[in-house]
Amino acid sequence: MTSLFKALADPTRREILRLLSRGELTAGQIAEKFAMSWPSVSHHLGVLKNAGLVEVEKKGQYLYYSLNATVLQELMAYLFELLNIKEDEKNEKK
Amino acid sequence: MTSLFKALADPTRREILRLLSRGELTAGQIAEKFAMSWPSVSHHLGVLKNAGLVEVEKKGQYLYYSLNATVLQELMAYLFELLNIKEDEKNEKK
Repeated sequence: MTSLFKALADPTRREILRLLSRGELTAGQIAEKFAMSWPSVSHHLGVLKNAGLVEVEKKGQYLYYSLNATVLQELMAYLFELLNIKEDEKNEKK
Repeated sequence: MTSLFKALADPTRREILRLLSRGELTAGQIAEKFAMSWPSVSHHLGVLKNAGLVEVEKKGQYLYYSLNATVLQELMAYLFELLNIKEDEKNEKK
């Protein structure tokens, strides 16, 4: 959970996730969108992969990156739980 | 957004949010739950407040902390958008 939120606490990484939300991309296609060195892009992709936010699949000679919907859904479930318990509390007070 | 995720990237702060999801608490009530110094608890509460995740209200001589549901809902909307666009993409491919 901590690594998940650390991965999200960076604007470049959130921009990569936004790009991937429209479909899978190769590392090269992602790098093209950013005015930064390949090692920097590669570092950000590694952080996202280690946090479980993106998945990598080799197709032919290319590595394709895509969003891991399961992890994003787990994150939503966590937030929903925080909010839901609060709603219950309000209802009990009524 | 960055400060929001940075605030969430800490297990003590997530535990504080979990406690507050059951209802508002004073700083003292929160501090009682943790085996750490008051300055540490106070620091974590400050980070959560600055990120907008918790709100503080003075009632009598006590400061009451509560979850900011609006910010949590905005975070859910962000995650939903990431997932939703991905679903659209899948449908287009079908």
